[in-house]
Amino acid sequence: MKTKERTERIRIPRHAENDYTQESAAIRREFVKEHTGAHLSHVAQYSFDPAILPGNIENFTGVAQVPLGIAGPLVINGEHANGAFYVPLATTEGTLVSSYNRGMRLLTECGGVRTTVVDDAMQRAPVFIFSDAMQARDFGLWVQENIDQIRQKAESTTSVGRLRNIEQFAVGPLRYLRFNYLTGDAAGQNMSGKATYAACEWIANNHPKHPTYFLTGNTDTDKKHSHLNMLLGRGKRVVAEAVLRGDLLQEVMHITAADLAHTRDVLMAGAFLAGSSNNGAHSANALAALFIATGQDAANIAEAHAAITYTRQLENGDFYWSITLPSLIVATYGGGTGLATQRECLEMLGCYGKGKAKKFAEICAAVVLAGETSLVSAILHGDWVSAHERLGRNRP
Amino acid sequence: MKTKERTERIRIPRHAENDYTQESAAIRREFVKEHTGAHLSHVAQYSFDPAILPGNIENFTGVAQVPLGIAGPLVINGEHANGAFYVPLATTEGTLVSSYNRGMRLLTECGGVRTTVVDDAMQRAPVFIFSDAMQARDFGLWVQENIDQIRQKAESTTSVGRLRNIEQFAVGPLRYLRFNYLTGDAAGQNMSGKATYAACEWIANNHPKHPTYFLTGNTDTDKKHSHLNMLLGRGKRVVAEAVLRGDLLQEVMHITAADLAHTRDVLMAGAFLAGSSNNGAHSANALAALFIATGQDAANIAEAHAAITYTRQLENGDFYWSITLPSLIVATYGGGTGLATQRECLEMLGCYGKGKAKKFAEICAAVVLAGETSLVSAILHGDWVSAHERLGRNRP
Amino acid sequence: MKTKERTERIRIPRHAENDYTQESAAIRREFVKEHTGAHLSHVAQYSFDPAILPGNIENFTGVAQVPLGIAGPLVINGEHANGAFYVPLATTEGTLVSSYNRGMRLLTECGGVRTTVVDDAMQRAPVFIFSDAMQARDFGLWVQENIDQIRQKAESTTSVGRLRNIEQFAVGPLRYLRFNYLTGDAAGQNMSGKATYAACEWIANNHPKHPTYFLTGNTDTDKKHSHLNMLLGRGKRVVAEAVLRGDLLQEVMHITAADLAHTRDVLMAGAFLAGSSNNGAHSANALAALFIATGQDAANIAEAHAAITYTRQLENGDFYWSITLPSLIVATYGGGTGLATQRECLEMLGCYGKGKAKKFAEICAAVVLAGETSLVSAILHGDWVSAHERLGRNRP
Amino acid sequence: MKTKERTERIRIPRHAENDYTQESAAIRREFVKEHTGAHLSHVAQYSFDPAILPGNIENFTGVAQVPLGIAGPLVINGEHANGAFYVPLATTEGTLVSSYNRGMRLLTECGGVRTTVVDDAMQRAPVFIFSDAMQARDFGLWVQENIDQIRQKAESTTSVGRLRNIEQFAVGPLRYLRFNYLTGDAAGQNMSGKATYAACEWIANNHPKHPTYFLTGNTDTDKKHSHLNMLLGRGKRVVAEAVLRGDLLQEVMHITAADLAHTRDVLMAGAFLAGSSNNGAHSANALAALFIATGQDAANIAEAHAAITYTRQLENGDFYWSITLPSLIVATYGGGTGLATQRECLEMLGCYGKGKAKKFAEICAAVVLAGETSLVSAILHGDWVSAHERLGRNRP
Repeated sequence: MKTKERTERIRIPRHAENDYTQESAAIRREFVKEHTGAHLSHVAQYSFDPAILPGNIENFTGVAQVPLGIAGPLVINGEHANGAFYVPLATTEGTLVSSYNRGMRLLTECGGVRTTVVDDAMQRAPVFIFSDAMQARDFGLWVQENIDQIRQKAESTTSVGRLRNIEQFAVGPLRYLRFNYLTGDAAGQNMSGKATYAACEWIANNHPKHPTYFLTGNTDTDKKHSHLNMLLGRGKRVVAEAVLRGDLLQEVMHITAADLAHTRDVLMAGAFLAGSSNNGAHSANALAALFIATGQDAANIAEAHAAITYTRQLENGDFYWSITLPSLIVATYGGGTGLATQRECLEMLGCYGKGKAKKFAEICAAVVLAGETSLVSAILHGDWVSAHERLGRNRP
Repeated sequence: MKTKERTERIRIPRHAENDYTQESAAIRREFVKEHTGAHLSHVAQYSFDPAILPGNIENFTGVAQVPLGIAGPLVINGEHANGAFYVPLATTEGTLVSSYNRGMRLLTECGGVRTTVVDDAMQRAPVFIFSDAMQARDFGLWVQENIDQIRQKAESTTSVGRLRNIEQFAVGPLRYLRFNYLTGDAAGQNMSGKATYAACEWIANNHPKHPTYFLTGNTDTDKKHSHLNMLLGRGKRVVAEAVLRGDLLQEVMHITAADLAHTRDVLMAGAFLAGSSNNGAHSANALAALFIATGQDAANIAEAHAAITYTRQLENGDFYWSITLPSLIVATYGGGTGLATQRECLEMLGCYGKGKAKKFAEICAAVVLAGETSLVSAILHGDWVSAHERLGRNRP
Repeated sequence: MKTKERTERIRIPRHAENDYTQESAAIRREFVKEHTGAHLSHVAQYSFDPAILPGNIENFTGVAQVPLGIAGPLVINGEHANGAFYVPLATTEGTLVSSYNRGMRLLTECGGVRTTVVDDAMQRAPVFIFSDAMQARDFGLWVQENIDQIRQKAESTTSVGRLRNIEQFAVGPLRYLRFNYLTGDAAGQNMSGKATYAACEWIANNHPKHPTYFLTGNTDTDKKHSHLNMLLGRGKRVVAEAVLRGDLLQEVMHITAADLAHTRDVLMAGAFLAGSSNNGAHSANALAALFIATGQDAANIAEAHAAITYTRQLENGDFYWSITLPSLIVATYGGGTGLATQRECLEMLGCYGKGKAKKFAEICAAVVLAGETSLVSAILHGDWVSAHERLGRNRP
Repeated sequence: MKTKERTERIRIPRHAENDYTQESAAIRREFVKEHTGAHLSHVAQYSFDPAILPGNIENFTGVAQVPLGIAGPLVINGEHANGAFYVPLATTEGTLVSSYNRGMRLLTECGGVRTTVVDDAMQRAPVFIFSDAMQARDFGLWVQENIDQIRQKAESTTSVGRLRNIEQFAVGPLRYLRFNYLTGDAAGQNMSGKATYAACEWIANNHPKHPTYFLTGNTDTDKKHSHLNMLLGRGKRVVAEAVLRGDLLQEVMHITAADLAHTRDVLMAGAFLAGSSNNGAHSANALAALFIATGQDAANIAEAHAAITYTRQLENGDFYWSITLPSLIVATYGGGTGLATQRECLEMLGCYGKGKAKKFAEICAAVVLAGETSLVSAILHGDWVSAHERLGRNRP
């Protein structure tokens, strides 16, 4: 193995004892200026005490100021979210806020959105490695038989988390386990990781083969979309649904239910053809803007933007529309939810703190549905204006 | 069609003539306070003039302050990015900055990351609807024959955008077209939409059948991951690659190339099993933090986080590692790139303004690779510490 | 609704009382001759009494004669299959038999293939339709609470089948159920369908909402590959694995384990890029040839060809290779297994009749593995011969 | 590297000079009897001279006799297939023939099926390996620049095949090429392989880097379903479409277009949820039965069964239905098409020999559509009979 000279590095300054101060941040901004020439003067304009930041960031230097607009009211008739909401959206994309606002108007005038959290669990998915497939299969049975002790070990690490169940997937000599936890109002990735680590250590020590394992086998699938998530969920699985009244579709969106049904047929075929993670329109727009505003982990857009839409043209001229988000990862406690502006945005929705995560999940789904109705109507209507003939209604 | 009473709505206040003022924002914060009880006092702390915001947001009310840390240096040897970079990361997830920092150390000590933009185009994908499949097929030929005029129409709407080519996909009586544009240093979604609309109008008017179309057939696939993107790309297709030296793997990460190869085999099987959008580890973490810091559209995490990794254990004890991001959508001009803190962060990377988009794309990919090496090493090493026996090297 | 003339049809002749006779078949061949001009003289050459055919075909007219070759011996060390097997392969593709034969030689000389059935269930997946997502969610709980009665109803229709469990998937107001049955030595699609129908009728009658349902919601996914199958299995989930000895790899295949590892890295990246149902080489070749020979349902190739490979280069110069077939649908009883030539081919493998399905599944997987080693070695070696330089071993 | 004893093998007897005789086959059947105990007496009953078999099978031992039924008439109004067809289906699955027959009746009474081949190419997809991504990217340009010479080399190996184009996919230091050939009436896998090998050898010799390559990078994706095939096609991309008359839907199938639209919405959501290769019902049934009857490669069911359905409820009470098969691999020349019974079955369809492949492809697609309408109607109607209330038409 060769041993070469290594590149010299000029390290970013840190204060060994207390790095979460205005001074440390200022020293790093000065360092940036010296080494890159950039003046971080706006970055320096934050309104909170850096002492609140441990657990949220390292090498704190300042803030990104993301413009925040509001949309609403959006009437939601959920189990956890009820009433007319005004929604904070942090974005730099023009028209996003006004487009969601338009969808919210339609949904609200139609009587509002129904929302339901249909499932809820956070995962950590280790993999255990054996000499052959039979050992791996037998290990799977052993895990089932020892589930009580495994649960006890996992839950010993957390006052909130509860191990719901462990799914198993067999590949050759490998056994992928998928631990599902109830994590209260936290998103729960760290809680799940810590609990699963304790469980895996116990397993590795107590199973007769003392198997090797990795704490993740890439089947979590943390920060990544996957078909596994679509089927088995990750975080909250939430449905938002509404019946769009035919008269209001025409008045607000200038379209009919029959046209909408046709458009949906075409878009569904396109999504299937493309191998898309979402056969709807643009859930990521709502979720990114909400996540940044409220201190969610924006990397989870990767997972959370997946969706399955199901719609039906009703015979009375109305149009039923649903969207199911299978892997919505949100928190109202822990993570970035307690930071200065983030907390204010959660408070705007009545969603700050414990006991609010499902309410917030329902609001997220309802906002997504508002964006779907707005964009698909625009796609359809945009064509309407321009086309030199109407859609042939007795043609494909 | 029934006509019911509609829900009454209390509208968010707007100033008809100039809504981008401190006063308008303050009025809306007051409105929020009145209707939700939330005091948006930190949200009110922004350091720029709202007059810069048209085109970025509506109903401007304040800002989300997202903590910003820095990591580096990361040595990059790219075509467009060259040198040692200090990287701004806006996040609320603890350990993210330090984990990337650790990966950057390894990569830098190994001599840095090679980066290459291998493809570059932004899309808008309309669908044209015919009476039967034969008409749709013939239309496809007509589009090829009339490509010059279609290009001319499309490009007449933009001084920057260039129509590279049009891909076609046939489904029943539908013809999905996918317009690919070179869009300079803008992400280009709006430019592509406008150009494609002009082209479609020309087509609808000039094709003998005057076909109906939708401006998107859901095959763009805007704000959504898709396998189509994986294959054909969206935005920039970028590769980051490095040879990790065996000696430094051991010293910095406490692992060997052989162990890494084994870990990768297991994680690749897991990703394939899960139907993941990314057979690497966690590109979304780097991208979300970079996107928020630099004014990219965070909703594009949905598309940008896809990745294909390819690695190889070398016989000399080193380890070759590459990651390919097939659909990285970034800009250094337009969108949110010119906002106050966002511009400063781009300047930190020497990436603000025209002629910098490829450089920025290379930096994004290099940062992603840093996170891959850091996390996978941790997965492997975490096991190392805990396991009561070493990985059997002559077992599966 | 228009009422047009309908096209006149000349119907295929059938004998109302007993259509499974040589005479009926001859009458139909004559009909074909009259209406198409084709003489079905070889088709007429079958060696069994058509009276055995009810339940296997309608409008029996003769046979397709598919050439049958044999390959082997293949040594298998399974739980159910043990010994040296000679394998019947019905195919019209030249080199298929000899390629599998070559792989069998390598595997056998290396000591044989280990095989393990790691899971086993057949599905029918109805969908129940509700007014909203909450009703659908509550229905899911009701199904769990009433599982004993549902099981009783399902199992009342079959002497063999056992309802193992019911998986649930929520989409909007829909609840997709997936009934998993143990079906003994039958493939079990019909058994599962009949039992599930009885269960669904009971549900529809006894659930307070008397919900509408379809007997399939397209999540079975009968006769179609799906990622759901990859994760949750369909039919038998079987692993075949072997350690290829380095010395024999060189002697028989003219390759090394290190080269093989590299080739696998490249092919795995290709499969992931392509969005393939199988990151191995060509399982469908073995399965189609075996299925036709032994009276399996050849349409199930759609499901059965899916595979996940996992391999590892061992430090001693050997190479571990596994392939997992997640959805292998096979029978040794019922369906086409009792037909004349089909039964003989099953007898050749010691697999005819009850108690043999897992043995046959293990043989199928072992044969698939033989083909994998043969083809991948050829891909690698083919290059070997031709390339003007050896693979750089310290390059990617 | 260890050198162990190897397992002794009793080899299958072959005649060195002429193995394609009745005697050789008889010797092998005797060998089977001796080594497995199975009497291959029905397998021995074939009606052709084994001398026709070279290129189709090795170790010929006899035949599998697969029962053959016929269905029809099916009226097809295609470009290549026109008229009323009687269709040979080789299967062991009861009800298959009668179910297709029922669908054919509906389609025929509705005026028949329109069929269109919208694309046609066979692939071989090698991968070239470089030191880094930039070299790989530059190689991609070199391939484009040298396309004429590459084409000449490829086409020098075949009198029929024509290289249409080469698609390129970049992953790290790898360049996956996908050669698309027009192959006349042969399926063309071998032709494509041979031509691509010649082209690759020329490339490897003439490109300045003399790159290493594998003749397949697993992106063909031969004998495997892939999303790549769905998008870019493999073999023939064929559409079958029909307008089902409302009156006949009710009379023949006892359903309405509105009910059908609802059923389709539910099944489409299920297919998307499941990650299915086909959002239709059961194309594999038709294709397997047709492939076995007519000497196609049954392993290609893996690829051919993929499908995209697109339907629309028309306002006049009719229902438009299309199915697109993106990767239908069929031949009317070469392979198994000239064998005894196989040729007769092709003759029954007027599809034997040169100039018939597109006609046969259209027939395949039309038969698939017949099965779709039959099965989906049964799914819907089955529910009809049993449900204790009608589908609520103003509910989801």
